[in-house]
Amino acid sequence: MTTPIDTEALVIGAGPVGLFQVFQLGLQGVHCHVVDALPHVGGQCAELYGQKPIYDIPGIPFCTGLELIERLQQQVAPFQPTLHLGQQVGSVERLPDQRLQVTTSAGQTFRTPTLFIAAGVGAFLPRRMALDGLADFDGTQVFAEHPKPERWAGQHLVVAGDSDTALQTCLDACQGPQAAASVTLLHRRDQFSAAPEQIAQMRQACHEGRMRFVAGQPTGLRTLAERLQALELLNPQGETEWLHLDVLQTCLGLSPKLGPVAQWGLAMERKQLVVNTENFGTSEPGIFAVGDINTYPGKKKLILCGFHEATLAAFGAMALLRPEEKTLLQYTTTSTLLHQRLGIA
Amino acid sequence: MTTPIDTEALVIGAGPVGLFQVFQLGLQGVHCHVVDALPHVGGQCAELYGQKPIYDIPGIPFCTGLELIERLQQQVAPFQPTLHLGQQVGSVERLPDQRLQVTTSAGQTFRTPTLFIAAGVGAFLPRRMALDGLADFDGTQVFAEHPKPERWAGQHLVVAGDSDTALQTCLDACQGPQAAASVTLLHRRDQFSAAPEQIAQMRQACHEGRMRFVAGQPTGLRTLAERLQALELLNPQGETEWLHLDVLQTCLGLSPKLGPVAQWGLAMERKQLVVNTENFGTSEPGIFAVGDINTYPGKKKLILCGFHEATLAAFGAMALLRPEEKTLLQYTTTSTLLHQRLGIA
Repeated sequence: MTTPIDTEALVIGAGPVGLFQVFQLGLQGVHCHVVDALPHVGGQCAELYGQKPIYDIPGIPFCTGLELIERLQQQVAPFQPTLHLGQQVGSVERLPDQRLQVTTSAGQTFRTPTLFIAAGVGAFLPRRMALDGLADFDGTQVFAEHPKPERWAGQHLVVAGDSDTALQTCLDACQGPQAAASVTLLHRRDQFSAAPEQIAQMRQACHEGRMRFVAGQPTGLRTLAERLQALELLNPQGETEWLHLDVLQTCLGLSPKLGPVAQWGLAMERKQLVVNTENFGTSEPGIFAVGDINTYPGKKKLILCGFHEATLAAFGAMALLRPEEKTLLQYTTTSTLLHQRLGIA
Repeated sequence: MTTPIDTEALVIGAGPVGLFQVFQLGLQGVHCHVVDALPHVGGQCAELYGQKPIYDIPGIPFCTGLELIERLQQQVAPFQPTLHLGQQVGSVERLPDQRLQVTTSAGQTFRTPTLFIAAGVGAFLPRRMALDGLADFDGTQVFAEHPKPERWAGQHLVVAGDSDTALQTCLDACQGPQAAASVTLLHRRDQFSAAPEQIAQMRQACHEGRMRFVAGQPTGLRTLAERLQALELLNPQGETEWLHLDVLQTCLGLSPKLGPVAQWGLAMERKQLVVNTENFGTSEPGIFAVGDINTYPGKKKLILCGFHEATLAAFGAMALLRPEEKTLLQYTTTSTLLHQRLGIA
């Protein structure tokens, strides 16, 4: 457990709307901490649309998801948000002083009067292999998070998946001081989504006997003395076979999960957080929801709408953070105060 | 009176929000006509902030007003809106078929089921000289609109103002086949907002006797036989003098006027059009209001908020234009239909 962080604002989600939330709070003179489940900023926009084109950001006739994120990172740079990446929010509770206490999967605690949920479709978490009983071995013999060689050094490793990450993990595990005793790539068929050169390298390694490929669909597992011993597979010929292993590393991509936010007791409709359109506050004072995660009459899940929502949420938060001041609208074109905050001489 | 134009959508105002309204309607497959009082697109953004910096357009860390307009023009280009510039909307009435009939100051009539008021702070109209009785000569001897030499060819011209336009009008009127008989620049003091080289040229022309400058504040006028004969001036020495003239061209800048829109019977609050935040419709079916001209709980007069409003207004309009279809949200990243409309191969 690390030292709790006291902050004026905590933003959950470092996608485009979360980043613009940081910008709008920055204009108001509020520094933000930002939590995201992914190890990098950009959220869905970077993860799913990184190289894909976007045509409807106002004033930007064309950009890719990654380009949009780069532009937003440049825009928020003057406000220096503190990023807490690769961790998920867990619980939230109301402290006696009315602030919110939020704890993450990395054991970090935040205490804040305002919380902005910009979590999109949820936290992007590694997809897990759906197999009864397999979850019991999570973190001991079965791993879905980012591959690490210390997990399988000297042991019999099975890597499940067909992506670049899956194939590269196999190739890496064949060699070096932390090499596995044996390396098996498992995928339901002999076709892969990885890049052609990656596939060629994998086939060459199989040809040289450094690793092997097994086609099959996991259907069950065998355990002995509370250890996972083997996966039961249905192979493409329709036969059952057994694949022995010490360690299973799955590389099955990322899947968004709304996760604990759904358990926070906030008013919801069809898995979306209900907000008012005056300040995009949820049913709980101090908690705002912006972007794809919220709902209200007329809601469209568009990034440009999230930008508007984050802007009004920032003004809504100021009513809580500086109740004694009347927050006036100032323009970045003319306001000396905003220029100072933006670091413009 | 020109032939009436039948259209699916009429946008009033060619500022940033009006342009983005065209874009969002274009994505929905709707072609727009656009009316603006200024002779160019860009509205307030081009007129007042053309060379000034804007820092809060999401994804654009810095741009000038004119740059933003250029970017938006590029973005709407695939949808080829029909522009009707330099004219103001006048009356609106409901036709028996429930469409709206809108007439402009240029005598153009539009018949449309949907009307989008993106008029910002109003139409930018030339500021007029405030002097009792002067308006009687508007269009015969007194002109505030864009200077035209045929108004003063061979006559005694007074140009009021201190801008580049005022000084250039004087310099142009001294020469050529449509030269005035005499040219007098009138401004309250011997200091000008025009560019230094423009001022130098004007002084040189005065020195050479091609024109003259008179400092003074208009305080009255003299008429004879329904003709304006002279302006009464209070000069900087506190003395009254008379300035004889045939034609007065004022170049006093532009001033926004909400104009006839305020008389349309739409629900208003503090000179703003009241809208609902589901589709930014006004109190009148088929009439939407977006950008600085509207009001709702939480409203902030920011361009980025207008972009959101225009987007939801486009969806709101589709419920009227294509009641038989359910307008689904499609993404520019993935939708083949939107790519076709955007002209992307």
